[in-house]
Amino acid sequence: MKHRIVRNIRRADAEGCKLLGQMGVATVHEAQGRTGLLAPYMRPIYTSARVAGPAVTVLCQAGDNLMIHAAVELCQPGDVLVVTCTAESTDGMFGDLLATSLRSRGVAGLVINAGVRDVADLTAMDFPVWSKAISAMGTVKATLGSVNVPVTCAGELIRPGDAVIGDLDGVVVVPREDVTEVVKAAQARIVKEEKNRERLRAGEAGLDMYGLRAKLKDLGVVYVDQED
Amino acid sequence: MKHRIVRNIRRADAEGCKLLGQMGVATVHEAQGRTGLLAPYMRPIYTSARVAGPAVTVLCQAGDNLMIHAAVELCQPGDVLVVTCTAESTDGMFGDLLATSLRSRGVAGLVINAGVRDVADLTAMDFPVWSKAISAMGTVKATLGSVNVPVTCAGELIRPGDAVIGDLDGVVVVPREDVTEVVKAAQARIVKEEKNRERLRAGEAGLDMYGLRAKLKDLGVVYVDQED
Amino acid sequence: MKHRIVRNIRRADAEGCKLLGQMGVATVHEAQGRTGLLAPYMRPIYTSARVAGPAVTVLCQAGDNLMIHAAVELCQPGDVLVVTCTAESTDGMFGDLLATSLRSRGVAGLVINAGVRDVADLTAMDFPVWSKAISAMGTVKATLGSVNVPVTCAGELIRPGDAVIGDLDGVVVVPREDVTEVVKAAQARIVKEEKNRERLRAGEAGLDMYGLRAKLKDLGVVYVDQED
Amino acid sequence: MKHRIVRNIRRADAEGCKLLGQMGVATVHEAQGRTGLLAPYMRPIYTSARVAGPAVTVLCQAGDNLMIHAAVELCQPGDVLVVTCTAESTDGMFGDLLATSLRSRGVAGLVINAGVRDVADLTAMDFPVWSKAISAMGTVKATLGSVNVPVTCAGELIRPGDAVIGDLDGVVVVPREDVTEVVKAAQARIVKEEKNRERLRAGEAGLDMYGLRAKLKDLGVVYVDQED
Amino acid sequence: MKHRIVRNIRRADAEGCKLLGQMGVATVHEAQGRTGLLAPYMRPIYTSARVAGPAVTVLCQAGDNLMIHAAVELCQPGDVLVVTCTAESTDGMFGDLLATSLRSRGVAGLVINAGVRDVADLTAMDFPVWSKAISAMGTVKATLGSVNVPVTCAGELIRPGDAVIGDLDGVVVVPREDVTEVVKAAQARIVKEEKNRERLRAGEAGLDMYGLRAKLKDLGVVYVDQED
Amino acid sequence: MKHRIVRNIRRADAEGCKLLGQMGVATVHEAQGRTGLLAPYMRPIYTSARVAGPAVTVLCQAGDNLMIHAAVELCQPGDVLVVTCTAESTDGMFGDLLATSLRSRGVAGLVINAGVRDVADLTAMDFPVWSKAISAMGTVKATLGSVNVPVTCAGELIRPGDAVIGDLDGVVVVPREDVTEVVKAAQARIVKEEKNRERLRAGEAGLDMYGLRAKLKDLGVVYVDQED
Repeated sequence: MKHRIVRNIRRADAEGCKLLGQMGVATVHEAQGRTGLLAPYMRPIYTSARVAGPAVTVLCQAGDNLMIHAAVELCQPGDVLVVTCTAESTDGMFGDLLATSLRSRGVAGLVINAGVRDVADLTAMDFPVWSKAISAMGTVKATLGSVNVPVTCAGELIRPGDAVIGDLDGVVVVPREDVTEVVKAAQARIVKEEKNRERLRAGEAGLDMYGLRAKLKDLGVVYVDQED
Repeated sequence: MKHRIVRNIRRADAEGCKLLGQMGVATVHEAQGRTGLLAPYMRPIYTSARVAGPAVTVLCQAGDNLMIHAAVELCQPGDVLVVTCTAESTDGMFGDLLATSLRSRGVAGLVINAGVRDVADLTAMDFPVWSKAISAMGTVKATLGSVNVPVTCAGELIRPGDAVIGDLDGVVVVPREDVTEVVKAAQARIVKEEKNRERLRAGEAGLDMYGLRAKLKDLGVVYVDQED
Repeated sequence: MKHRIVRNIRRADAEGCKLLGQMGVATVHEAQGRTGLLAPYMRPIYTSARVAGPAVTVLCQAGDNLMIHAAVELCQPGDVLVVTCTAESTDGMFGDLLATSLRSRGVAGLVINAGVRDVADLTAMDFPVWSKAISAMGTVKATLGSVNVPVTCAGELIRPGDAVIGDLDGVVVVPREDVTEVVKAAQARIVKEEKNRERLRAGEAGLDMYGLRAKLKDLGVVYVDQED
Repeated sequence: MKHRIVRNIRRADAEGCKLLGQMGVATVHEAQGRTGLLAPYMRPIYTSARVAGPAVTVLCQAGDNLMIHAAVELCQPGDVLVVTCTAESTDGMFGDLLATSLRSRGVAGLVINAGVRDVADLTAMDFPVWSKAISAMGTVKATLGSVNVPVTCAGELIRPGDAVIGDLDGVVVVPREDVTEVVKAAQARIVKEEKNRERLRAGEAGLDMYGLRAKLKDLGVVYVDQED
Repeated sequence: MKHRIVRNIRRADAEGCKLLGQMGVATVHEAQGRTGLLAPYMRPIYTSARVAGPAVTVLCQAGDNLMIHAAVELCQPGDVLVVTCTAESTDGMFGDLLATSLRSRGVAGLVINAGVRDVADLTAMDFPVWSKAISAMGTVKATLGSVNVPVTCAGELIRPGDAVIGDLDGVVVVPREDVTEVVKAAQARIVKEEKNRERLRAGEAGLDMYGLRAKLKDLGVVYVDQED
Repeated sequence: MKHRIVRNIRRADAEGCKLLGQMGVATVHEAQGRTGLLAPYMRPIYTSARVAGPAVTVLCQAGDNLMIHAAVELCQPGDVLVVTCTAESTDGMFGDLLATSLRSRGVAGLVINAGVRDVADLTAMDFPVWSKAISAMGTVKATLGSVNVPVTCAGELIRPGDAVIGDLDGVVVVPREDVTEVVKAAQARIVKEEKNRERLRAGEAGLDMYGLRAKLKDLGVVYVDQED
């Protein structure tokens, strides 16, 4: 129950994160059994934003970014900073100065369950951010929170070191110990989907390809030729 | 009250749809007496998206895209797939595989009162989609729904074959039997608006051009030179 | 309590507005003590939109744009039209014809606590708009409102002539009598931030640069090396 | 596409409406195949509110209640007034004076996809209302709409004369020609549910009573005794 | 732009406030030209809550109730405390201890653009509160704000000393200098409405009583006997 | 990543849960360091609802209550059923039949991150429920989920057996291993608050009682006697 800053964390495998990032959020989400997807209000600030890496987690008081500053020096190259608050907020808790500081440490991007500002600068820097809002609203630095504790962010549990993947479809978290398994499942899915894509492109009906005609029949489908 | 799949529908005139698409959503909406506009939460996934064509309608259980698969083979070139759910949902019920399948049949685009995923791929394919959300959340294929029945989508009634037009301003539906009449009204409106645009560009006051000074006077307008 | 149209207003200094616009919304908001920021639902219709100028304010009945027409002829070059309603609305109260009319008078842009339409045209004209929604929904011209009275717009008080600044981070209002003071404070902030940016880029910790280690200690921070 | 007032409508059978009202919204909604339920934001203004009767429908401009006044004289004893707008609104379009007028004609209640006011008075009168909001915001009487045309209200199509049933669980519409069939289905459902209720009260597991153990097994359920 | 605490304010006339409270929010809102109504998300915590009195205003950092404590000693018997934040918040910034403190000074009630907690206790105390949310979320006491400055609360400007009236229909503010005038207008309205109520109760059509038949005709109303 | 049903769980101490329930949600939330509070959209269906007990957790597909049926037989007297979905939903996944079944096993109440129906019946049964919505919308029984796994519900992590407390202020979760410690902290808080309540009732200023005058001074408070 006490706030704390945890210095050392176990990180998801870097190569695994990279692969998950290449496969994308929708595939990873499916590959781990349709779990781990953050709420769809988490949107990238520009359309080409993509990120994948282990999470450094930050729990802030809403409207107070003190703990983001405390988190910066615990970040390593390739990390994804994950920020959430103890209450709902859209304040602009993060801007180009913090991005400059994170970039100097090689941090890959930010996922923040609040607002972000200096969006034109962040875009020019190609510093990818997924946020709940864009807002210039400034914040104070007054209240203690935690760094590198398990947090709930946009509806999902994210533990320090878990793999966080973001693209135009949203953000998904993979528990760090599941990365290898999810990579395999995602690769298998991609192979299967590529074959399916070819068949669909050639005009085969999905009903046939997926064997859904039998299912429709079981469910009692009624076909009608035309309604008056 | 029974779910059903209707194979054959009467479609809005193709040429009429094309003309409505060229004139755009705002003009069409005005031309049919300010009716038929879907709720403004329906947004295109990329800014150049435009579509116009007869609707093939799909009613799904929320979180279940079985009936989209059932609808694909009933689509013809130029159709617009319209998907809605029996309850509110933001799940990503549609992605690049379904788009590939629809594209192979010449379908023009999608209007979905739920979420969509694989947005980067859909954009690369230039497959236009209007949706309520972008979400990677996957769906099951378990529950019966209907195809080509009248549906309520984002606040408007859409019947199979009605003309559906989408652009950056939103989505509007025109009853298939009204297409010719609405085309005419929209064309007249465009002619009138072009003249008005010229006059306004030349600096004429809208108050004069629209004859609104009399109206303001009737309503008892009070002009004040300056407030302290 | 009576509706009225005020012909002459005192405008914020043009040069001051220009400087505020160059410094941007986030900086201006901070420079005036974190006040004046409109709610973050006010978003630009295209990403390069920027505006800064004195407000001409319009109070409309929701769904009725009569008073926007009345306001046009009171605008001067460089003005920013600010439109709000007596009740919540997302209707498309403003489109390309009104923009054409405003452009012919040199108006710099629009901030509207409602919807906007003809967005593709407005973008092509590079006419910047911040709105609550994009919607083709048309409006009537039936009910009296006011022009150039103090209004509440997206949570902030805006008086006629106040400086309104908009960019990708949102919209901020500066009372017209505070413009000079805020310009100075913002310039000082920019100088300071540029120095800070350099230090952060060089790898200095924000905790050190801002002197936050002492604050964390005062608040009773607990550092833990590693959690099991 | 033209606005109009329809004087005479075919009404759902009064006795059928009464029976549907006694069985309640959840039962009726299930009995007609889980269709017809209005969005859950439609809430009664007091907890004991219940209504069932044929709809007199009104389509208004948002913020304008002119057409409600036009609808009053077309109402008959037992009718339910259904009001919706051409755009989203929470304005208080209806209050105690209109309720007094409707009551004098024996109208049973109101379903309004907007706001309502004088709620304390309406409660004292026991005049049941389901609305989207409670708001004192007054409205004008300036713009034409329609009476007794098919409308979309809170996501559902309601035609004049359709049976509308409201209680603490929400509002459901039954097409007037389906009332007899739905009454029968609902009665059968009630009989079945009463038996099920007894069995569940006696401690029988729902998994057994509904035969769901086989389904779980088919879906590949995994039972685990205890997690560490 | 500086935060400050203003000790002495001019208060709306006590007798005027009392009369406005008796006439109710909807009547007062209409009587001052349909202005001053707070957004409808401001709801009373219990249905019999009613309040009317001059405002003591508080501007807080979201999630921080320090300034409410600072405001208490500036309150006089009959005052209504009005609390708003510099950013959106639903935190429970106010509970039974603060209510106890306010009650000891004779404060009449609270209007808070945030959350409230200890709602069962506040109800038992009959301490009326209008809030945006009910939430147990606790707050800190860390950041400076202002007391008795003009604030924007739920979309309306409230100045210290303005009359604030709340009931089941919402909350309305009347500028302190307008109280006498609004009382008169509201009284006239009540007299007129009582007469209208009698006529409507007796069955007279609102269309006749308000003279709306002519208006409908002017607008081009179309009556249809029956639709097929 | 696999769905599963866990038969045996470690439950929070019954006596501890009872005590937490008596002290209430706001006090418990504060006593454990302002953590564990579910989002404020979780509201009780009637005002006297109160519950406290160990959680049996259920993770469902949105719109599918199969796993609630699977969970029933794993419940023990005093348990609180906690239901959440893999995607946002307001469907009425729970009604009076499930409540009857749970009641027959002595279950104390329900917390559901979705909709509930048969609310009049549940109220008559005095079966307390906290939900996101009231909706008659029925659900299917088609898709596998999990029982007694850790879930994220309305923004908070709830593990099987954790203590869940609900009252009019919302819902809070206490990790089962922290119950004893939180009970002590809450009891100490209550003692302290009772003393504070007495002092405030007697008229002592909170600024003095909490020692906040020094803090205001440190923050640079500015007192002004009167503004013009």
